[in-house]
Amino acid sequence: MTTFKAIHLVKRPDPGPITSDIFAVVEKDVPTATDGEILIKQTQMSLDPAMFGWMNADKESYIPPVELNTVMRSSGVGEVVASEHPDFAVGDRVMGMMGWQEYFLSNGQGINKVQADVPDEMVLSVFALPGLTATQGLFNVGKPQSGETLVVTGAAGSVGSIVGQLAKADGLRVIGVVGSDEKASWIVNELGFDGAINYKTDDLEKKLNELAPEGIDLYFENTGGPIQHHVMQHMNAHGRIVVCGMIADYDKAEPAPGPSWVPIIKKRLSIQGFTMPDHFDKVPALLQKLTPYVTSGKIKYRAHTLTGLESAIEGLNLFLTGKNRGKLIVKL
Amino acid sequence: MTTFKAIHLVKRPDPGPITSDIFAVVEKDVPTATDGEILIKQTQMSLDPAMFGWMNADKESYIPPVELNTVMRSSGVGEVVASEHPDFAVGDRVMGMMGWQEYFLSNGQGINKVQADVPDEMVLSVFALPGLTATQGLFNVGKPQSGETLVVTGAAGSVGSIVGQLAKADGLRVIGVVGSDEKASWIVNELGFDGAINYKTDDLEKKLNELAPEGIDLYFENTGGPIQHHVMQHMNAHGRIVVCGMIADYDKAEPAPGPSWVPIIKKRLSIQGFTMPDHFDKVPALLQKLTPYVTSGKIKYRAHTLTGLESAIEGLNLFLTGKNRGKLIVKL
Repeated sequence: MTTFKAIHLVKRPDPGPITSDIFAVVEKDVPTATDGEILIKQTQMSLDPAMFGWMNADKESYIPPVELNTVMRSSGVGEVVASEHPDFAVGDRVMGMMGWQEYFLSNGQGINKVQADVPDEMVLSVFALPGLTATQGLFNVGKPQSGETLVVTGAAGSVGSIVGQLAKADGLRVIGVVGSDEKASWIVNELGFDGAINYKTDDLEKKLNELAPEGIDLYFENTGGPIQHHVMQHMNAHGRIVVCGMIADYDKAEPAPGPSWVPIIKKRLSIQGFTMPDHFDKVPALLQKLTPYVTSGKIKYRAHTLTGLESAIEGLNLFLTGKNRGKLIVKL
Repeated sequence: MTTFKAIHLVKRPDPGPITSDIFAVVEKDVPTATDGEILIKQTQMSLDPAMFGWMNADKESYIPPVELNTVMRSSGVGEVVASEHPDFAVGDRVMGMMGWQEYFLSNGQGINKVQADVPDEMVLSVFALPGLTATQGLFNVGKPQSGETLVVTGAAGSVGSIVGQLAKADGLRVIGVVGSDEKASWIVNELGFDGAINYKTDDLEKKLNELAPEGIDLYFENTGGPIQHHVMQHMNAHGRIVVCGMIADYDKAEPAPGPSWVPIIKKRLSIQGFTMPDHFDKVPALLQKLTPYVTSGKIKYRAHTLTGLESAIEGLNLFLTGKNRGKLIVKL
């Protein structure tokens, strides 16, 4: 094989669902690794909600957007197939930001060997962006205490499912907000959450009263949407809110208004937005914090696997419809 | 004189302007100070936006509401006219929570001698709730850095005017949001703010672009209202928001929605609500922090003085209309 496929971002997306015309599938020659380089054959790549931010040229975004007519940004797992780099050998399993392409030539920067003897899906579902984000957001921002009540939105999603399980392992009461009964059942019956709210069909006020009778101490927000207004009313004094994602607004030209700030004063709430790129220096410490939860069997995951490079394009829309079941992964 | 007047709260207020029927003016006998007690003749009492919270029986409120058929809560300055307490002498000038009444019998708890040789108005305008709130909120919550840009709402108000002057003294660029041209002129020409925005008449977007060309690092919120949505769009990455008051919503049955949370993530903002009652243990430290600014002439104030106990009732509505000019004080 002397050529491979890559997908370039060629247009900024409009509000609404992602359309395939913003991408172009291109054929490239497989490069040769020269001094200090490695050639990686990517085996699985990750789809993440953060990609909606990366595709936009919004000057306010927290990391530079993907430049037009370059490979779409993504993380992935792969195998080193050629190495002229002293730290990597052919056959090494590695992870890093490899982009939407079948092969990736690297000088090794930002590429890490996969240490754990776990499936590719688990690497991308737990030890990559989702697990790091959950660990940083829950522990370093949210500062959970045993006995407190946590509400997490996007609770069946890649970040939310790990947040809930970590909190549960640390003795919190954990309530997950999801968009289907199937997801509700999964987080309660499989992941051990104390309760689930289907934001599409449940009476939110009634459910919060029922599931959080002593109020909410910690609110981990992955989605946005009207549930915000209800959760704010149920927050306890000195409650903490971690704002990690707003997927409900990423495809909207005009984001919906947020909740009134009156409860912020009345209850002296703190709200903190965060994104992982500010904390990449903490990755070793975060992995050290996360790993024992995983090795002791506290963290379950499920991967929703699409097949073939081009499935990534339509795959992004699963975030907007909420139809993914588990961490979205594209198998190459 | 053997009797004095006091005002009881007899009904919880409805949304909208305060009506006089929620209060009752009562005549009481002047009590006698017995062992361990002091009798204070109040000379000036303070009106504060926090009173709107104190009058409501909202279980979420940060301090217990005023009980019905008891004296309305307020802070004030007065003179000890009889003392059976070892720490106080007749003639001492004191301050504390004395309530809406002409005389106050106390065991000395929460009553402090006024140390500074400054007028009563200055005690209530600077060294009482407004100055303490400004000092705690700006320094301990907002953590201002020289060279940063601050936007403060209610900038001609008792808290906002001090916040702006403290920040200005510490080398910040300070923009105040006010509700009249007269207030705009006062904060710029008298207090030395770098700019003012009249939220009622100015084009908010244009003015923010003009006055904060490098964005906003610190937002001190005293009022609420539509300016929130604009300021959020102008916040810089890692900006801090101190939520201290929401007077625009205190008389509304249904508070207006807040700004979208999308900028909270994009800019990794932190938002912290706070109220002084959580920090009364820090009062000595706060006064120590504040005093040098005052003694070096950095803090100007103006008092809007009403006369007579009963003027307090209608006085509360000046907060809702924004028609007060300076710290509201009732002279007895």
